[in-house]
Amino acid sequence: MDLNKEDIACLDREYRRNLINSLLGYKHALLIGTTNEAGQHNLAIFTQVIHVGAAPPLIGVLFRPHTVARHTLENIRATGQFTINQVPEAIFRQAHQTSANYALGVSEFEATGITPQVISPYQAPFVTDAGVKILCSLAEEIKLERNGTILVVGSVDWISVTDMAVGKDGFINHQALHSIAAAGLDAYYTGEVLSRLSYARVEE
Amino acid sequence: MDLNKEDIACLDREYRRNLINSLLGYKHALLIGTTNEAGQHNLAIFTQVIHVGAAPPLIGVLFRPHTVARHTLENIRATGQFTINQVPEAIFRQAHQTSANYALGVSEFEATGITPQVISPYQAPFVTDAGVKILCSLAEEIKLERNGTILVVGSVDWISVTDMAVGKDGFINHQALHSIAAAGLDAYYTGEVLSRLSYARVEE
Repeated sequence: MDLNKEDIACLDREYRRNLINSLLGYKHALLIGTTNEAGQHNLAIFTQVIHVGAAPPLIGVLFRPHTVARHTLENIRATGQFTINQVPEAIFRQAHQTSANYALGVSEFEATGITPQVISPYQAPFVTDAGVKILCSLAEEIKLERNGTILVVGSVDWISVTDMAVGKDGFINHQALHSIAAAGLDAYYTGEVLSRLSYARVEE
Repeated sequence: MDLNKEDIACLDREYRRNLINSLLGYKHALLIGTTNEAGQHNLAIFTQVIHVGAAPPLIGVLFRPHTVARHTLENIRATGQFTINQVPEAIFRQAHQTSANYALGVSEFEATGITPQVISPYQAPFVTDAGVKILCSLAEEIKLERNGTILVVGSVDWISVTDMAVGKDGFINHQALHSIAAAGLDAYYTGEVLSRLSYARVEE
């Protein structure tokens, strides 16, 4: 199937959303936890997340304006912090359910049965069952002019990783953690390792 | 294992790179094809890619300054276009090998044995074996102040997807395409579907 720009623009809206959202294949599926200024917990699944750097450790999260995700963005702006949590296979259905359009004042933790964990001194809630827990502080906010999306860059202040998943070289075994990947708007996967490869050199 | 910002800063450099790069789990693994102004082909694997929007279709690619990826960025700036190509399992080793620091003037297609495909009227080369081929034109370039990385936003001008992988609702079956995911700097995976879930509603 070949489509040019005009063909894509003429597609049925739902068909286009599914097609374009699934073009790139497997992507991160992560739960982002925040609080508002009153201490109310919020949790939402995000797939538009990107590693920005390792030293200093930085992570980017892309927010669309006018979506259910706005509570998360408002909370990050108000409190300056958020958590990023790995999603284990055991809770992938609840994780997806956090994308429902819950009213302000409803905690997605309570609504979906995901157990929150508060780790002092941080206010933003973690997901108890996550094998990787990350606390980020708001470092930078960038608006993409082409469609108004907002890239929030978080500075990694604290992490917790299940010991058994951390290799001697620091690599985290996400297959052992039963981490999930996402594709499109509603599909979830587990990973099966092909291989770790050595650093690529010209000589090979 | 719990680490705060200072602990992370004090880690061995390679350990930190592996740890921080693998924190978020499974991510895109895609081959980006470009040409320079002389028509020389370039191909490089990228994992820091993000879906930016579906209408209009936009894709973001994050570039680190001073890396082997600079040929790709220079070519995009010079020609205004690039291709994004799905990586099927059958060529994942060659795809990784494109990350070697080949000299200017060496085509990674020739060096790694990946077969290029030129599709008129576009100059940037595609990967023949890719089940999803995307032609992007440079739409926006944004510098992230915190670490100097550069987010290139591409506007999707043309796509080609293997017919058998496209569902009635537009969703692309990446398991059928044997698409790969990446984690960290050197690990590659195939996906095994858990489920597609229905649109999440508050009532459920």
